[in-house]
Amino acid sequence: MTTGPEDRRPVLAVDLGGTKFAAALVDCSGRVLGAQRVLTPRGDGADAEVLFSNVARLLENVLSRVAQSEVRGIGIASVGPMTWPQGVLSPVNIPGWRDFPLRDRLVEAFPGLPVRIHNDSVCLVIGEHWRGAGRGRSNLLGMVVSTGVGGGLILGDRLIDGAGGNAGHIGHVIVEPDGPLCGCGGSGCLEALASGPAICRWAHGEGWRPDTSADDPDAARLLAADAARGQPVALAAMRRAAEAIGIAVASAAQLLDLEVVIVGGGLAQAGPILFSPLEDSFRRHARLGFARKVHVVPAALGQDAGLVGAAALYFEEATYWHPGPDG
Amino acid sequence: MTTGPEDRRPVLAVDLGGTKFAAALVDCSGRVLGAQRVLTPRGDGADAEVLFSNVARLLENVLSRVAQSEVRGIGIASVGPMTWPQGVLSPVNIPGWRDFPLRDRLVEAFPGLPVRIHNDSVCLVIGEHWRGAGRGRSNLLGMVVSTGVGGGLILGDRLIDGAGGNAGHIGHVIVEPDGPLCGCGGSGCLEALASGPAICRWAHGEGWRPDTSADDPDAARLLAADAARGQPVALAAMRRAAEAIGIAVASAAQLLDLEVVIVGGGLAQAGPILFSPLEDSFRRHARLGFARKVHVVPAALGQDAGLVGAAALYFEEATYWHPGPDG
Repeated sequence: MTTGPEDRRPVLAVDLGGTKFAAALVDCSGRVLGAQRVLTPRGDGADAEVLFSNVARLLENVLSRVAQSEVRGIGIASVGPMTWPQGVLSPVNIPGWRDFPLRDRLVEAFPGLPVRIHNDSVCLVIGEHWRGAGRGRSNLLGMVVSTGVGGGLILGDRLIDGAGGNAGHIGHVIVEPDGPLCGCGGSGCLEALASGPAICRWAHGEGWRPDTSADDPDAARLLAADAARGQPVALAAMRRAAEAIGIAVASAAQLLDLEVVIVGGGLAQAGPILFSPLEDSFRRHARLGFARKVHVVPAALGQDAGLVGAAALYFEEATYWHPGPDG
Repeated sequence: MTTGPEDRRPVLAVDLGGTKFAAALVDCSGRVLGAQRVLTPRGDGADAEVLFSNVARLLENVLSRVAQSEVRGIGIASVGPMTWPQGVLSPVNIPGWRDFPLRDRLVEAFPGLPVRIHNDSVCLVIGEHWRGAGRGRSNLLGMVVSTGVGGGLILGDRLIDGAGGNAGHIGHVIVEPDGPLCGCGGSGCLEALASGPAICRWAHGEGWRPDTSADDPDAARLLAADAARGQPVALAAMRRAAEAIGIAVASAAQLLDLEVVIVGGGLAQAGPILFSPLEDSFRRHARLGFARKVHVVPAALGQDAGLVGAAALYFEEATYWHPGPDG
């Protein structure tokens, strides 16, 4: 899709999550410059316009360092669901936005700049493929284990979008058909067993008592710390999540003939406490010769991965951006 | 990859299964001309060379109708596993071939003709995408429920090969982690619950007594017939398989954002006895909005699908053939 001489101007990258909004310039080598972060507005005052003005101000702050003509475009990684590639958002964790036309509003607010958007988990996986733990691999699944369980897929050296930009929802692979109810309405989805809140709820039911409520976003971090200290219920909770992740990863590896599976998100920071039982579970469930070759590895880019991926929607558009010309 | 004027010569297509070998000319519109079929040689005499001479004779018979120069190439759909695209076969159900270099042997036997090979389930899905139930769809899973459970994937209008040509193994998506042992060494794979032999074994354990052994390849057909007549154990066996297929299809639909799932193979001929509980199971397990739009439909091409798909490895090579120049 690239025409003419390669456009090496930086991208104004934005990462919109339920916890924080981030923006930065990302250059053509994937370097993140001058990142700015604010907490996601919450509560009754956080209506659609307040949320949008926070995003616009963040972008203007970053743009204050360069002339707009020196920027190639705006790349957005956002929590979903959204209609894609139109970028109309109804994020579960940002209740102020329902059917909010974020992409159109940014096109209006920053005339002359193209705006491309994709799911935040997808952008994280793009970032890891372009500049992180998946560099040089042609077939990979990336997953984000955090408040939810999301992901993205690169197969045959191309991002897989699916029919409507939703490919990569590893959190809704079914690992225990009679298992716990999932937020989606199904039961036994990976997310119902391995998301941070799901793990904490289970541990709480088994008698784990953190210094906070089990629904606190920080509870999963406390649980991982307790597991690292050898607290038996916390350890069992991490093993149960790892077992479920191993099953879902085995299903995906056998269905897709992957090379590598990258695990990121808050919970992945637990290290061997998570990865060691995950590896055991995966090895027990993935028995086909080709699936046994798959490596399960931690993400490498940390909190910048989504920004880097959002920029790659431009710098490597043949690989990561298939909707066609910018509207 | 096509250069120069489009090559409209027919392809010599071959379908090698555990039950029969078939060959035909397939023209550029997907028509199958002069198909020939023989039973797959079995027993002690069916060594590697006997098997190969049967294949070669079948091809020569088909070629006797045209000059070799009027044929574009040889396209093979074969049971696996195989190394791909090299086409070195070790098919589970053809014990006479172990590490048999079928592709190289055919290159040697038919000098001047290129030889392309892919997994038989993959070719069936290609055939259904090119000329059957998946026509015009960009994102589909095709599955073959028979002696085993195989499949293939088209995503973003391209065949997905995976790292080594093994993508599409829906039979080894895990649907019941503590379920029955699978031939692969794992447990609770879809194939361990829904293949013809798996269904018959379960029904036999519940008291079903067909007029043949439960391991007879025809037993599944008898079971489907008994289910159609309302025999309770046979009905329960079909429902149990359909439940498992629905779970695996829901996992795949949510992971991949599919448009359509095509179900073929012997068992799919059971019709509503299979498809009705399959649809129920799928609807119960696939709850995300985008997954609920997926249609689960029967295959349309019947026994010719593999031949048609093997020919499409040439006629639609940009979509279905990615290994690069013929060696």
